[in-house]
Amino acid sequence: MSILNQINQPSDLKKLNIDEMKILAGEIRDAVLKRDSMIGGHVGPNLGIVEATIALHYVFDSPRDKIVWDVSHQIYPHKILTERKEGFLTPDGMNKISGYSNQDESVHDFFKVGHTSTSVSLACGLAKARDLKKEKHNVIAVIGDGSLSGGEAMEGLNNAAVLNSNIIIIINDNEMSIAENHGGLYKGLGLLRDTNGKAECNMFKALGFDYHYVEKGNDVKSMIDVLSKIKDTEKPTIVHIHTQKGKGYQPAETDKEKWHWNMPFEIENGKSKYSFDGENINDMTYQYFMDKIKKDNTIVLVNAGTPGVFGLTPDRREKLGEHFVDVGIAEEHAVAFSSALAKGGAKPVYLVMSSFIQRTYDQLSQDLALNQNPAVILVAWGGISGADMTHLCTFDISMVSNIPNLVYLAPTTAEEYMAMLDWAVEQNTYPVVIRQPKSVEHATKAPNKDYGTLNVYQVEKQGKDVAIIAEGSFFALGKEVCKAFEPHNIKPTLINPRYLSGVDENCLNSLKANHKVVITLEDGELDGGFGEKIARFYGADDMKVLNFGALKEFTDRANLQALYERYHLTPKQIVEDTLKLIK
Amino acid sequence: MSILNQINQPSDLKKLNIDEMKILAGEIRDAVLKRDSMIGGHVGPNLGIVEATIALHYVFDSPRDKIVWDVSHQIYPHKILTERKEGFLTPDGMNKISGYSNQDESVHDFFKVGHTSTSVSLACGLAKARDLKKEKHNVIAVIGDGSLSGGEAMEGLNNAAVLNSNIIIIINDNEMSIAENHGGLYKGLGLLRDTNGKAECNMFKALGFDYHYVEKGNDVKSMIDVLSKIKDTEKPTIVHIHTQKGKGYQPAETDKEKWHWNMPFEIENGKSKYSFDGENINDMTYQYFMDKIKKDNTIVLVNAGTPGVFGLTPDRREKLGEHFVDVGIAEEHAVAFSSALAKGGAKPVYLVMSSFIQRTYDQLSQDLALNQNPAVILVAWGGISGADMTHLCTFDISMVSNIPNLVYLAPTTAEEYMAMLDWAVEQNTYPVVIRQPKSVEHATKAPNKDYGTLNVYQVEKQGKDVAIIAEGSFFALGKEVCKAFEPHNIKPTLINPRYLSGVDENCLNSLKANHKVVITLEDGELDGGFGEKIARFYGADDMKVLNFGALKEFTDRANLQALYERYHLTPKQIVEDTLKLIK
Repeated sequence: MSILNQINQPSDLKKLNIDEMKILAGEIRDAVLKRDSMIGGHVGPNLGIVEATIALHYVFDSPRDKIVWDVSHQIYPHKILTERKEGFLTPDGMNKISGYSNQDESVHDFFKVGHTSTSVSLACGLAKARDLKKEKHNVIAVIGDGSLSGGEAMEGLNNAAVLNSNIIIIINDNEMSIAENHGGLYKGLGLLRDTNGKAECNMFKALGFDYHYVEKGNDVKSMIDVLSKIKDTEKPTIVHIHTQKGKGYQPAETDKEKWHWNMPFEIENGKSKYSFDGENINDMTYQYFMDKIKKDNTIVLVNAGTPGVFGLTPDRREKLGEHFVDVGIAEEHAVAFSSALAKGGAKPVYLVMSSFIQRTYDQLSQDLALNQNPAVILVAWGGISGADMTHLCTFDISMVSNIPNLVYLAPTTAEEYMAMLDWAVEQNTYPVVIRQPKSVEHATKAPNKDYGTLNVYQVEKQGKDVAIIAEGSFFALGKEVCKAFEPHNIKPTLINPRYLSGVDENCLNSLKANHKVVITLEDGELDGGFGEKIARFYGADDMKVLNFGALKEFTDRANLQALYERYHLTPKQIVEDTLKLIK
Repeated sequence: MSILNQINQPSDLKKLNIDEMKILAGEIRDAVLKRDSMIGGHVGPNLGIVEATIALHYVFDSPRDKIVWDVSHQIYPHKILTERKEGFLTPDGMNKISGYSNQDESVHDFFKVGHTSTSVSLACGLAKARDLKKEKHNVIAVIGDGSLSGGEAMEGLNNAAVLNSNIIIIINDNEMSIAENHGGLYKGLGLLRDTNGKAECNMFKALGFDYHYVEKGNDVKSMIDVLSKIKDTEKPTIVHIHTQKGKGYQPAETDKEKWHWNMPFEIENGKSKYSFDGENINDMTYQYFMDKIKKDNTIVLVNAGTPGVFGLTPDRREKLGEHFVDVGIAEEHAVAFSSALAKGGAKPVYLVMSSFIQRTYDQLSQDLALNQNPAVILVAWGGISGADMTHLCTFDISMVSNIPNLVYLAPTTAEEYMAMLDWAVEQNTYPVVIRQPKSVEHATKAPNKDYGTLNVYQVEKQGKDVAIIAEGSFFALGKEVCKAFEPHNIKPTLINPRYLSGVDENCLNSLKANHKVVITLEDGELDGGFGEKIARFYGADDMKVLNFGALKEFTDRANLQALYERYHLTPKQIVEDTLKLIK
């Protein structure tokens, strides 16, 4: 690592010549692969943007010139060049930095970013602030990798175009989103690529941007030439660069989708260091739909650019055929589209990760819930986790369950999940959201098939004094808590509420007879969540209520066990807290 | 009304010749003006779309062919032609129909729509459902009036372009949004208008659409000619039509912004039937900022296409100059932009109506709260209302207050509002959301100036047995409830919580000493709201808690007093409910 050794600041780059920068590019790729292979992370996007990043830091003067990285899929080379190369070279260093943009790590980052399509709007804000303060510097957004199709990016472009001032938007066109690209936008980019940027029909020029095309986006010199030309421009400017996702690492060049993000792997052959066998929810879900579409031509799975979260590999997508629609990164469209599919007599199921369902609150409320169309939404990964602060899945219950008319279901077992899914798909009355189980727990008895009578909780075990209402992925915790009460001669009632979006007044009233405390266990934020509805219900009664769940906070790559302890979510703590109340 | 008399169904139109349709257009305009002048409503958008609507129903066969109206600003002529003309002709009929698209009113409407930018996505869903079911008919979205700049519309266009099937998008270009248009998109439309649709640089063609331009969008024959040509097309098709907002009514032609939506007026001269004098929050807010910008060049007001909600008339906007940015209908951009303005050292204040803040949950969470930038957001009209179901302002507390890091303030008087606003603008620590008062109540003592110590509730009156925590616009109700307790020899403690986003543990703990019941009064939805936080806090205590507020439901043009009664929000009901608990 001879050249990278000399680079500690972006300014160090300016001493290098082109040939040295080419060598540096190789060293940066090695560093990216080292981190990814050891702790996992984004591979392809980072390998593709190496030369562009070198050129950006060679031409501009960060942090005076401000570079805003969209979604952070391609921020590793920037991190390596901005005082954080240890995060790629040593095991200790790797855990010190995150895989995402973070202003707390470096003055060269300006925002914490992990959701897509935000960079143009953020850059507009920095640019306008600069203009109000009569300062002079460049503001640069780097966007690509499918982020362009998100509504916020389009709103941003529409406004950036009329900023009447310096703003430079690098569109990194690697012909891919996380999976393949979807939408007319990418047709437009294709035409520009095919004509070396010369096509008259240019959406960016139509918006009013100055437009530059760089065919060789993986050539440092080509990048430097164009960026030098537009540096200090006083006009909103687009630099459309054509790069290769996964560049320089054969497995990532070959299978771009698989190598977008990877778990730890062997660098020599790309083989994963871990293997996952056995049953999983994604296989069950896929198999359910494959069976279903044989009998029902109106089934359609909708996804917004993250098929991998649901195990929908390219071959599975091909088998689903017209019954699968990837709308690209466009969650708002996905919900409205699904609502209208249901209105039109189809049976849509929108598959979305918990962290991303929050990108579409208004569509859930207006396009879907207000219209009461029977579309189905499957939410993956909902719950407290050790994720990066930008990808938490803690907030979906609080967000979804307080929107009128939405039915939010939380299955506790694989069988219950399948039963709820089938009921949701076949019914015609409600928009239904289902929080997918995170692992496969098998039921000991057959689940209900009909969930049409809303908000009926299931008493799984009748006890007294203490009632535990344990939702979805925390039902297993509920069972553990029951056991932990045994030494104290307490046999609690255990309840599977099934519905996160309403209270079962009959059930809760019946508990008053011989229970003193109701405990709620919630795999999500307490504020605005399920447990608070129970607390409100009992407000006028003598019943004590203890709500357990996550605090209202953004955690960051937390140790899950430590987090549970901080939240008093271990069986021991829950029993202790309860015993204090019933003495 | 000789011709309109004969029209009950769209099919009746097909018997008319062009000259008769021109006469009909005049009669429809009269009907639109009759309704608007008597009960208020959208004026300019409806007057501009008359001929296009006649042509649509002449050429297509609704409801077999499905027309989806964006935002419903321009749906009146459609309603008049689809069995609902009584809603425009007689006082009784007027209250029977809403001003918005509503499938419960007519088979010719497919969705309840009142927020913008949804029509293309919804049309995509109907089209895909049609294709799965192997049916044949046209699906048409009508969008315009500024809706195109909303992210959902752009996501929809991106997907519509690759639908590979029949979808027709009418872009009604009247050169206006609610106020003037903003953004590069509208530059692009301008170039197309200037070249009679012939410019090579065409963003719609770049996306892959077939494109048609109609310069004379207010000429029935021109519209019929083009629509007849593209009927039953098998390709995604854009029809860009140029119309005149306010067409046919002199005041509305002249002052397009004022006449976008109007209160009841005299048809002869356009004079409003009502006048509003005296102090109002908008004037105070405007004056505050005008004073502020004289001293501070970094202040910037941000709005997303609804300056009228905040009384920001064209002359006021002009006076604000570079300190005002209307980003067009693009709430997501507005929040990200504001966050970045704060990061860049400016002092941004984003002005948004409660019903529309829900269009930007993810940006509030990721772009703003996660980054803890000290941007300020003013929320107008928050609270229970008699609004149309598409424009409720009941949900903002539940949505905003459960996002970590956001400080949500609820002033109870004009003076407290101004103090909170000034604190929020000048501080550097928190993203702050302020729920604007709906009317001017004056404080009897000077409000605090510093709100930097979070979640400190203000005890306004010390009493015992009963404590009333009355937030923001319901503080006045809290005072009334206090009075209503007097005959029962109860002197309640009255608390102004000021912070909607957290609990004051000290204050709540201190109440335990000599209070039996805590009442929360909340001008918004109970589920996920402020009161539930209080109920959760007291879950383990003997304190009884009664939460008063709105149920989780979409109400529709409700009688406000009746709604309060149904929610037990009258002082008498609140006292009765409380007395049941303390006997």
